Order: sequence, then C-alpha cells, then structure tokens
Amino acid sequence: MNDHELAKAIERADQAINRRDLIALMDFYEEDATLVIEPGRFARGKKEIATAFEAIFDFFNQSLVVTQRDFHIIEGGGVALVVCNLKLTTEGKASSPVSMERQPTYVFRKSEDGGWRCLIDNSYGVDVLNMRRSMG
Amino acid sequence: MNDHELAKAIERADQAINRRDLIALMDFYEEDATLVIEPGRFARGKKEIATAFEAIFDFFNQSLVVTQRDFHIIEGGGVALVVCNLKLTTEGKASSPVSMERQPTYVFRKSEDGGWRCLIDNSYGVDVLNMRRSMG
Repeated sequence: MNDHELAKAIERADQAINRRDLIALMDFYEEDATLVIEPGRFARGKKEIATAFEAIFDFFNQSLVVTQRDFHIIEGGGVALVVCNLKLTTEGKASSPVSMERQPTYVFRKSEDGGWRCLIDNSYGVDVLNMRRSMG
Repeated sequence: MNDHELAKAIERADQAINRRDLIALMDFYEEDATLVIEPGRFARGKKEIATAFEAIFDFFNQSLVVTQRDFHIIEGGGVALVVCNLKLTTEGKASSPVSMERQPTYVFRKSEDGGWRCLIDNSYGVDVLNMRRSMG
C-alpha cells in the first residue's frame, strides 16, 4: 500500500492496460512523453505511444495483465523519479503463458490540473543498459 | 565514448568529485535538486547536497574516485533520464581499499543557459528498492 498520488496514478494506468482502455491510458502521459518500447526504441508523443500500446496488446494476444507495487518515489527539481516492481503476465491463446518481472523507472511531473503525468516511461529500468550490451 | 552533452556534464561532475572541487560540482545541480544519500535518505537543494558531499568525501578518507560510462539517455517531456555504469574506488588510509559498481539513474533538465543540470541524483538506480527491502 502506498497512498502517494503517484502510486494511485500508476495503479490506474495498470487497470487501463489490463482492460485495454487506450483513452484512459493516454491520460497517464504528457503530450510530449517518451515510452521505451524496447531498449533503444522509443515512441514519442501520445499518438505514437497509443500506436505502440495497440501493437503491445496484439503481441500479447489481448491478454496482458500488468501489476506494479513497492513504489519508491524520489521528488526533486519539480519532477519525480519512480522505481517499482512490475509483474507482467499473459495467458496467450496461440503462445504459451508468460510471466516476467521488471523494475521500471519512470519520470513524472505534476500538471496544471493537479494530476501527475508521465514524461518518461522506461519499464526496463537499468536493464536498458544490460539488454543493449547483450544485444551488441 | 558518448558525445551527448549530458555524458560530458556527468564526466565533468566525476572530475569535480575526484578532485574534491565542491564549487565545480555544485554547478552540476539545479537549485532544488535532490540527492539520494542512501535509499530513503535525501539531501534537498544545493546547500544540503554540498554538505552531504563533504560527509561522503570524509567517509571515503578524501580518496574517492568515481568513473561513469555507458550512458543511456532517454529524453521526453522536456527532461532526460540517464542510466549508466558507475565504478567507485577508494584507497582508504585507515580502512581497506574499496571498489564497487552501481547502475545510477539520474533526471536532468536543460537550463536557460543551455547547460544540462541534475534534478534527481540517484546513484543507487533500482537498488533503492532492493536495499530498502533487505533493510527491513
């Protein structure tokens, strides 16, 4: 349990992902946010992020379930860095069920309407480094 | 080698740390930046950050040497998230030599003078989570 508004915002985003609700999910992001699709590959801005999520939902056979917990929030300079534990499962119809864990790293800023919005969504955390090195 | 201005800024900060130059080091930070001293413990603002570094330099017997490389930079929403590899060595006189590696996570913003400045300095990366959990 974490009562910080940011923890609640991330939990709402998880719920939006898990019911494939792109409109609710896009409210999680700033207009000029960046999503790390995979290390070194980015979706920039809400339109590209929405397209990327459609592809992600398809990739996981519309069965992706994301749960995040243990939110560690560091505020500074008008933004917030969030590190947490993420569990991702999928009950693929065509493929085998998948379960994986990650430690994402996000950057947020509080918008004028008082809601926290994501500026950088890096679900790979520091593994962006390790995966790139292992790939090349 | 990374020619991004941010990589150069971090390299200059390392050089300032390694010669114990607090004035040069403080130019690396925004006025309202946050430094993670250890997971769950923060220095907020330049004054507290300078005091924290004086204590860190003392803790390592004025022999701390920091080297960072493999800068992975993700820009979005007007800020930048940086993940990299950090090596820290100290040739302590009283204590034994120490060498450790970390994968820090930083947030930067470009200032009006064109220089990138650090908003959040979290040298522990995602280990802020693991260390807190192991601590209790």
